[in-house]
Amino acid sequence: MDTANLRKRIADLRAEFEERLAALVTIPTVSMDPGRRAEMDACAALAGRYLREAGARVDVIETGGFPLLLGRIGEDPTLPTVTIYNHLDVQPAEAADGWRTPPFQLTRDATGDRWFARGTTDDKGPALTALYGARLAIETGVRANLQFLWELEEEIGSPNFSKGLAAAIAGDPAGGRRAFATESVVVSDTIWTAAGHPSISYGLRGLMGFTIALETGAKDVHSGTTGGAARNPIGELAGLLSAMYDARTGKVKIPGFYLDVRRISAAERRGFGRAGFSRRRFAAAHELKSLRPLRSDLDALAALIAAPTLEVHGIVGGYTGPGIKTIVPHRAEAKLSTRLVPDQDPAKVFRLIKRFVKERLPDAVVTHEASLEPYLAPTGGPYNAAAAAAVRATFGKEPAFVREGGSIGAVLTMRRLLKAPVIFLGLSLPEHGYHAINENFDWGQASGGMEMFCRYFHEIARGSARGSKHG
Amino acid sequence: MDTANLRKRIADLRAEFEERLAALVTIPTVSMDPGRRAEMDACAALAGRYLREAGARVDVIETGGFPLLLGRIGEDPTLPTVTIYNHLDVQPAEAADGWRTPPFQLTRDATGDRWFARGTTDDKGPALTALYGARLAIETGVRANLQFLWELEEEIGSPNFSKGLAAAIAGDPAGGRRAFATESVVVSDTIWTAAGHPSISYGLRGLMGFTIALETGAKDVHSGTTGGAARNPIGELAGLLSAMYDARTGKVKIPGFYLDVRRISAAERRGFGRAGFSRRRFAAAHELKSLRPLRSDLDALAALIAAPTLEVHGIVGGYTGPGIKTIVPHRAEAKLSTRLVPDQDPAKVFRLIKRFVKERLPDAVVTHEASLEPYLAPTGGPYNAAAAAAVRATFGKEPAFVREGGSIGAVLTMRRLLKAPVIFLGLSLPEHGYHAINENFDWGQASGGMEMFCRYFHEIARGSARGSKHG
Repeated sequence: MDTANLRKRIADLRAEFEERLAALVTIPTVSMDPGRRAEMDACAALAGRYLREAGARVDVIETGGFPLLLGRIGEDPTLPTVTIYNHLDVQPAEAADGWRTPPFQLTRDATGDRWFARGTTDDKGPALTALYGARLAIETGVRANLQFLWELEEEIGSPNFSKGLAAAIAGDPAGGRRAFATESVVVSDTIWTAAGHPSISYGLRGLMGFTIALETGAKDVHSGTTGGAARNPIGELAGLLSAMYDARTGKVKIPGFYLDVRRISAAERRGFGRAGFSRRRFAAAHELKSLRPLRSDLDALAALIAAPTLEVHGIVGGYTGPGIKTIVPHRAEAKLSTRLVPDQDPAKVFRLIKRFVKERLPDAVVTHEASLEPYLAPTGGPYNAAAAAAVRATFGKEPAFVREGGSIGAVLTMRRLLKAPVIFLGLSLPEHGYHAINENFDWGQASGGMEMFCRYFHEIARGSARGSKHG
Repeated sequence: MDTANLRKRIADLRAEFEERLAALVTIPTVSMDPGRRAEMDACAALAGRYLREAGARVDVIETGGFPLLLGRIGEDPTLPTVTIYNHLDVQPAEAADGWRTPPFQLTRDATGDRWFARGTTDDKGPALTALYGARLAIETGVRANLQFLWELEEEIGSPNFSKGLAAAIAGDPAGGRRAFATESVVVSDTIWTAAGHPSISYGLRGLMGFTIALETGAKDVHSGTTGGAARNPIGELAGLLSAMYDARTGKVKIPGFYLDVRRISAAERRGFGRAGFSRRRFAAAHELKSLRPLRSDLDALAALIAAPTLEVHGIVGGYTGPGIKTIVPHRAEAKLSTRLVPDQDPAKVFRLIKRFVKERLPDAVVTHEASLEPYLAPTGGPYNAAAAAAVRATFGKEPAFVREGGSIGAVLTMRRLLKAPVIFLGLSLPEHGYHAINENFDWGQASGGMEMFCRYFHEIARGSARGSKHG
């Protein structure tokens, strides 16, 4: 493959790529909003058109929730088949939250190389980038079948992905759909540890979300007439939260919580050390004023990707208007989750937490909201080797093998149902504002990503990964 | 005074009283809402009309905030002058908060003896009751001057009352307004400890309201990508709150907080014991499911009226919508107050709290919101004796001398500017829903109140209190 020609071709595709990304982000595919069916269908139709224009046969699978798109380029049983997973649904975004540009309209910054809009980096930009990588691979004669799985429910934990994928695997001769099989999966929904430092993730944290509600009365009451004898549910929840964890350090105090945490090996730790992580740049990228007291950059990175957390997302209850209102609230609810690492089990962690809470506050109500198991891909092996080779050739740097702090529900489903190794080739950067206001993506990552994916597909086709399903 | 005739006359006045109370509560005099100027003026006009119809000369004093009404019945310098304080502004009320009837429309219950609406018990009902008591006293030949001070800013801490009262004391010959002087003040804005157990309050708790804000970033961030290294301001505030007090028991852990609390005397404690307080009835009246672990009814009452508190009114920040959203919040603010008892000083308590917070969370911002000193009226003395005699003759029971758990800013101002003893003759009951939804007042308390005030004014006129300014 001629690198100069490849890069020239990528530069020529830029205007079209930008136009297509702009069209995709204009559709507010907010999966948390059940009223977005029309937007989801519109996005599936548009994305289906892009897949077809790249040479794919497209199936839209009805999952019971929002649809799942399948696109297949090449169906030669003698060639290796790679599946590329992305999602096209997005987090909610409201202009009033502090966006500097309209959240559902692609806006270029002054350099022209950075695009702001919800979904640019998570995950419409990487999805389109991988598709352009596939197109380049085909143009350069790749000998592999490329299959696309584009989901519209990732941001709500992929509740119907398993059903949709099972239907795809079963096939549907009546509808003309053939069975879906693959030798490997690459997921492009992860984040480099630092700009300029390509990293390949080999693990995800799991998630267990829950709420704790405490109701001590039927209505808010006057703190003058009842204060002193009335219980204060916010105060008691605050006491409970501080018994559950030390928020200053993050250390969870629930007995047994850390019991199943697998130790990080010396090799993993060395890999983390090569990822270019810096607390200063991390804080700047996420606009954090200060961080928890972590002794080193490496300790901080390990806390982000290889250690479990307890997080308070919000407390509902009491007076939240201007000034103060001297009430004793009658109800408070804390919204929490834990991020989990191998080999923690979400169901077991929920049991530990529920027992801990009920021992201290018997009238609190603990409600399970969501569970995702942690995931650990094989380290090493042919697929990671192919990924590393693609990264090296594209970005001129050795990738660091790290883990991801987030959770992707579809990964666990794909490993289970497709019985194929799932690896990660992400393109997002910390400063891209994942799940935050002013989300953005940039031409550097998009153009590099196209080249990287093109090279990755050629690596697979060259057989470096052929023959092993356990890469 | 012929009791049978007096009660017959009160029964005859009932329809008119109800009609006037209904007209008063229809005007939403929500002082927290600065946009209610028209309603305040309408209420002042209506209340002025009621005062004039009872024979008063009325002045409306512009305070810079909402107006203050003065009404004078009788101006004979050889007679004793009693000032009656009430307020006509109310707490906010929204139908959506759980009101069973429209909050600003008087609605009778099935018996016809109980009226629901915001302001019925706090404090429009008692204001009108005291006015009817004055009318009855005049009809029965009372030899005293009766002065009314009706405020429209009590629920916001009486920010302009001091200025308004000073203007009234100074008088204004140009405006025809004479100087305002009095030998004693009676405030009717307090609550009996229990229905059927008349109580006379001789003290108020003070108040010191404040907020604690902690901002750890510029925006909410993703708990997958930042959780473990990012600080969690809700978690840290929860830890701080639980260091400040044990919410389960209410015990404040801030060093020095209890240092200036005056011990309750044995005589006071005996008085509390006669007030008919029961934890069961208290919990039922305020619709509380359970109370703090207090060993006896007497301990619970003492905690409500003679001990300071720390209260969390609300926490702002984080995600509060349905389900959970896996963010790390960037800011949290807790809204708090302490109720204070003699001889605690709000300014000193604020300093103690601020120091405590800053030692633990140097980047937290502690903001003072409001201060009211605690108040202790003289116990015993001629005014309390007159009040006790009026209660005894009206309700056939010995009143219990207790304190009030709430705070009334105007009381401190009147003691300072009028240099006269301030005593309390309240009519509200715990089940009347002070500051709560479904606020109500009832004919039993209104009719008894009219008789009690009539008798109280006669007691003063008879000279039982004349000659002492120190009650």
